[in-house]
Amino acid sequence: MDAKLEQIAPLGLRSSAVAAGIRRQSRLDMALLELSQHSQVAALFTLNAFSAAPVDLSRKHLSCAQPRYFLINSGNANAGMGEQGTRDALQCCTSLATLAKVPTESILNFSTGVIGEPMPMDKILKALPVLWNNLGTTAWPQVAQAIMTTDTRPKGAHRVCQTSVGEIRISGIAKGSGMIHPNMGTMLAFVVTDAALPKTVLHAWLKECVAHSFHRITVDGDTSTNDSCVLAATAAAKKPAAEDMSALKGEVMAVFSDLAKQIVEDGEGVTRPFVVSVHQGATVEECLLVARAVSGSMLVKTAVHARDPNWGRILAAVGYAGISALDVTGVRIQLNDVVLVERGARSPQYREAHGRQAMMETDLDIAIYLGRGDQNASIYSSDLSAEYVRINAEYRS
Amino acid sequence: MDAKLEQIAPLGLRSSAVAAGIRRQSRLDMALLELSQHSQVAALFTLNAFSAAPVDLSRKHLSCAQPRYFLINSGNANAGMGEQGTRDALQCCTSLATLAKVPTESILNFSTGVIGEPMPMDKILKALPVLWNNLGTTAWPQVAQAIMTTDTRPKGAHRVCQTSVGEIRISGIAKGSGMIHPNMGTMLAFVVTDAALPKTVLHAWLKECVAHSFHRITVDGDTSTNDSCVLAATAAAKKPAAEDMSALKGEVMAVFSDLAKQIVEDGEGVTRPFVVSVHQGATVEECLLVARAVSGSMLVKTAVHARDPNWGRILAAVGYAGISALDVTGVRIQLNDVVLVERGARSPQYREAHGRQAMMETDLDIAIYLGRGDQNASIYSSDLSAEYVRINAEYRS
Repeated sequence: MDAKLEQIAPLGLRSSAVAAGIRRQSRLDMALLELSQHSQVAALFTLNAFSAAPVDLSRKHLSCAQPRYFLINSGNANAGMGEQGTRDALQCCTSLATLAKVPTESILNFSTGVIGEPMPMDKILKALPVLWNNLGTTAWPQVAQAIMTTDTRPKGAHRVCQTSVGEIRISGIAKGSGMIHPNMGTMLAFVVTDAALPKTVLHAWLKECVAHSFHRITVDGDTSTNDSCVLAATAAAKKPAAEDMSALKGEVMAVFSDLAKQIVEDGEGVTRPFVVSVHQGATVEECLLVARAVSGSMLVKTAVHARDPNWGRILAAVGYAGISALDVTGVRIQLNDVVLVERGARSPQYREAHGRQAMMETDLDIAIYLGRGDQNASIYSSDLSAEYVRINAEYRS
Repeated sequence: MDAKLEQIAPLGLRSSAVAAGIRRQSRLDMALLELSQHSQVAALFTLNAFSAAPVDLSRKHLSCAQPRYFLINSGNANAGMGEQGTRDALQCCTSLATLAKVPTESILNFSTGVIGEPMPMDKILKALPVLWNNLGTTAWPQVAQAIMTTDTRPKGAHRVCQTSVGEIRISGIAKGSGMIHPNMGTMLAFVVTDAALPKTVLHAWLKECVAHSFHRITVDGDTSTNDSCVLAATAAAKKPAAEDMSALKGEVMAVFSDLAKQIVEDGEGVTRPFVVSVHQGATVEECLLVARAVSGSMLVKTAVHARDPNWGRILAAVGYAGISALDVTGVRIQLNDVVLVERGARSPQYREAHGRQAMMETDLDIAIYLGRGDQNASIYSSDLSAEYVRINAEYRS
């Protein structure tokens, strides 16, 4: 990933990363992004009522100024720390503002890591000048590393879009491997394009992209205090023409989907990602209701982990998803091409051996046909392993 | 448990249990309960759209006749089998009706076990005469064994209520250790009293008891296709006087709570049951919303498993529970007596050592004070262990 990311980092973006020793020694844990002067930024933040101090501050800054810098740290979420957390987040921004000679409001702050421990401000403040001095065009891959927590690998995605006004780059990085669920479990994502795009377009695209990517994955059903997702346009490349917009939006969406997929695949203890696709729903909402019930079921997740075509658990989850007036005799369930359930009951043709075989195929799609309409939606999910328990039982020790 | 259950089985109840070899050899897996002629029965069934055949049939029978017999099997849920399942459930009832010389409608049928496999009707029909011939007053403890699936021990609870008209007995048995969640995860419960009580009272008590017991526990968040919960009154003892009703209801409630607790404590892979109690809510509903989010969080469950006072995960779950306009600065969180969070942030007095100590105490109460009113509610939950994954990954193999 690294080499590719380096080659195609969007124009108008500089970055740096440093090992500040926030939680572990000799591990990249702080990063700085600098956007060129005419950049536009859209951002979405967690809906958690206990949103972390940097989330609250960034929300405020975004509402009153044009962001130029993103200051990011891993190892400490700066969440649940009350007024001290607020002061610390602000000090991160003011100190950087002094170095960069910009208004404090033009800095957004992002933190991820353990909740409820004070930020080691001495280490952070010491790292700021290093980050500032190292800003350059080659550190983008290191930034992807610096934002990792329990991630086992950095996550990046990038596309080049050939438009009528020339080449436009889109590049994104993300972190997050636990607390992943619709509404963005502990997740940070930064997607940057060098196109010139107005903020309104960025915001609309971001909302749509997130709804179809990060809001359609699940690892463990927890939503964190620190989720943040940013789409920035540096305007260093040209302004796309009207006829380019659809293709460009498609490529931006592809970057988001790619990152979301990587997050699930690197989910804590994940050995077997799978898709739950729901078809023939009356509405997209009811398709999502079913997809979330099935993809979030601990029993389905453990069955997938064991490569066990235990379709009874799938059927049970469809049944408790909460669809009103579901006629079960209209329901068909497949594992890839293998029909498990038709007309609401075990398919007479079904043989366990076929189900087991489907479970072993490279891609696994639990496809549910509701027989109620022509809408569909899917969720990208992951199995539940003993390793997940081990990771999360030991995370702080 | 067994000896006690035997001593105080309610009058007017006869039962039997047999090893029919439904799924495993030499294991009690079928049971029959017979209620004396003037009994009254109330029952609640799963809300799962894919309710099993015996659930649908029992619902129907209950609506048109006075139940006299409960025919129960473990090892096979008779769910997801379409018309064949319906036929099989009906045949269980008609065959027993012939033996017992009662209308088919006076028989309720209950099944629990694997979903989506045909019922071994030959074995079941062969076992019916044995069950019928063995009906007696001493088999109640064996019935508790016969309904077990992945349960590691039988569950029973009993109370004797001294009333103005004499002694009244209440005795219950239950099974269920996975798929446990509000709305009754795979759970069967049969509570019998020898009081004479009208059906309307039984139904009202059952609803209230279930709301405060089985609907307030969670193991893994899955709701099964077969949940059934029955409260029966045989009228073999006297009719309680008006002034006895409150005490009697209290004892019935105690039996339900006791059974619900036992189900969590025997939950799959459970090493550490815990209570999530929510206080100072504006409504009971919002207290339950918070209690369910915290008690159902896989991250909280794994932290409890590790005896790790990882209160950030509790705080995050409170934050995403979905309470509208939650002022986090009013929130206090305790582990037993140890204050972790006050005014929405880490308590300055809090020391990790105190949290660790609370985690090791015999009883664990994660107490959340919302500072919004005077309502409260609690959920009884359990930790998530690697053992849970092992059990559920291997259940069918």
